[in-house]
Amino acid sequence: MQEYFAAIDIGATKTTASVSSRDGILARVYQPTRKRGDRGTVPRQVDFLIGFACRQAAIDKGQITAVGISTASPFEKRGERLVVVAPNICGGLAEKREASENDWTEIPLEEDLSGKYPRLRIANDCISAAVAERSFGAGRGEKDMLYVTWSTGIGGGAFVDGHLLTGKNDNALHLGHIVMNHNYEGEPQCGCGGYAHLEALVAGPAIARQYGEESREVFKRCREGEPKAEALIRKVAAVMALGLYNAVALLDTRLIILGGSVSKNWDLLEPLVGEEFYKCFPSLTREVVFRHSELDDYLGDMAGLSLVMPDSWIARWQAGKPWEQAPEITVLESDVG
Amino acid sequence: MQEYFAAIDIGATKTTASVSSRDGILARVYQPTRKRGDRGTVPRQVDFLIGFACRQAAIDKGQITAVGISTASPFEKRGERLVVVAPNICGGLAEKREASENDWTEIPLEEDLSGKYPRLRIANDCISAAVAERSFGAGRGEKDMLYVTWSTGIGGGAFVDGHLLTGKNDNALHLGHIVMNHNYEGEPQCGCGGYAHLEALVAGPAIARQYGEESREVFKRCREGEPKAEALIRKVAAVMALGLYNAVALLDTRLIILGGSVSKNWDLLEPLVGEEFYKCFPSLTREVVFRHSELDDYLGDMAGLSLVMPDSWIARWQAGKPWEQAPEITVLESDVG
Repeated sequence: MQEYFAAIDIGATKTTASVSSRDGILARVYQPTRKRGDRGTVPRQVDFLIGFACRQAAIDKGQITAVGISTASPFEKRGERLVVVAPNICGGLAEKREASENDWTEIPLEEDLSGKYPRLRIANDCISAAVAERSFGAGRGEKDMLYVTWSTGIGGGAFVDGHLLTGKNDNALHLGHIVMNHNYEGEPQCGCGGYAHLEALVAGPAIARQYGEESREVFKRCREGEPKAEALIRKVAAVMALGLYNAVALLDTRLIILGGSVSKNWDLLEPLVGEEFYKCFPSLTREVVFRHSELDDYLGDMAGLSLVMPDSWIARWQAGKPWEQAPEITVLESDVG
Repeated sequence: MQEYFAAIDIGATKTTASVSSRDGILARVYQPTRKRGDRGTVPRQVDFLIGFACRQAAIDKGQITAVGISTASPFEKRGERLVVVAPNICGGLAEKREASENDWTEIPLEEDLSGKYPRLRIANDCISAAVAERSFGAGRGEKDMLYVTWSTGIGGGAFVDGHLLTGKNDNALHLGHIVMNHNYEGEPQCGCGGYAHLEALVAGPAIARQYGEESREVFKRCREGEPKAEALIRKVAAVMALGLYNAVALLDTRLIILGGSVSKNWDLLEPLVGEEFYKCFPSLTREVVFRHSELDDYLGDMAGLSLVMPDSWIARWQAGKPWEQAPEITVLESDVG
């Protein structure tokens, strides 16, 4: 009997769903993440989008074997069930609460969805990206790898000794929130409220804040040789190098894979990051290698799918890379469904 | 047939060996770690001390089933074999090479010993301490725990999701060597050559350096209410809190166990560390608990032994705590053997 898997990606801005069979991705749908209504809104939207993708794929929702959800985080647990406590979705946790669209302090994602599908696996978007890169991307076959997204935020997911790190509440590798200066004085505040966090120093918005233009523009000017942009990118790369070194000092990683929008400038960043990184404790850093993500543009489908895909499919997908032939995504207005 | 296990602890100052049967520790021997001769000196000393302990226990060395070695690190690998590249033993790696007693750049510990015993397991002293605490001490039954030694150095060992982290070269949790300030200016240099490492900021010698007296004296004066000592201990505790938070942000740990000589002041340190720790990202820190090591004084025997002890012994040792009734240790002069 043919099996079907649904993959979900819940971000602060958009939520995507796709449905795949053994042969490839059958249907994909995209909708702005809903933030109005009760705290069951997002789980209901996920369920609706899976149903929508199933209809596009001409299958019944009851034929779905498992759902893999890649989501913004962090998580907490209520009993054994994960709830999402992401300040960029849950208005009740946001720093500027008055400006938010809801007062949610948590989203009962696992509770609301676990009865609806035979199997459900939820992971934060960097842990699921690490799984995807290790199965299909730049980390194939690697036992000691770290995936890092360098984007609007900074996050990570890691395998150590071939084991995927999740931790007590599935929050492992919140790399963006490590403190990079024990002396907070003059250091920027992070979205989470902390000071001198890696994310507040090197993520896209941090680059923009320090320069006064969008980070994309800063990289453009850096490529043109503009000294202020060059100096900033050099500084940001050096701080990121120390953040990555800190992760390596703890995890004894061999391979670091960089993804995310800022990392699209990896040609520019790699020598700058490497220069500072390899200066740190040579016994720990000497054997570490960096690669750019191979799945960067496909994680919306592949991250969630990798969480639940049967082992027996993997070789076939590695060989055929069917994600590169995925159908066009259907874009739904927020009021549909 | 009775089984016997040897446990080794190799430190910069001393090396200990013990031999245990199912009923308890039979013999223990202690000798200054040898640092003169060729690079096979330390492996030969280990082999000699096991033989010495066996004679004391009235068994034949051939009766040893397995050897567990807890050692100073870091490690590198030559082929699949671990070599010790610890600057405090290998003179060829030391910062002040002219003052060192040898020119070793590595100790071929696994290569030299693996043929001599049926089974050999080597781990750094904090990883083995984590195993011991989880089997017999403050971490019993905990899947997400971090053991940290706060002593002359800072080191760690961790379980995440019940998996012991080792990493590509068994160097996981070099917590003392994470960078605590991306701006090195004015920051102390670490023994490894790096700047602003956690160890250089909060370990015993760092406390002594910042005050001008031994760290033990600083704690004594702090307890007496001496303002300068109080301010320093408060500052050191706050930096340690951020180092521990960084580990929690990456590993999503539930339980942190503190051991080592500085941590003997845990009554004083716990509220100071906790005050700063729980200010960091509440979703990640709220459920974390701290405990003091239960095996602190017994790790010389129990760390190495825990690496190789059969599962079938564990309940018996948990119940009887035979390490508390271990025989007196025999102290050998460095020229014996």
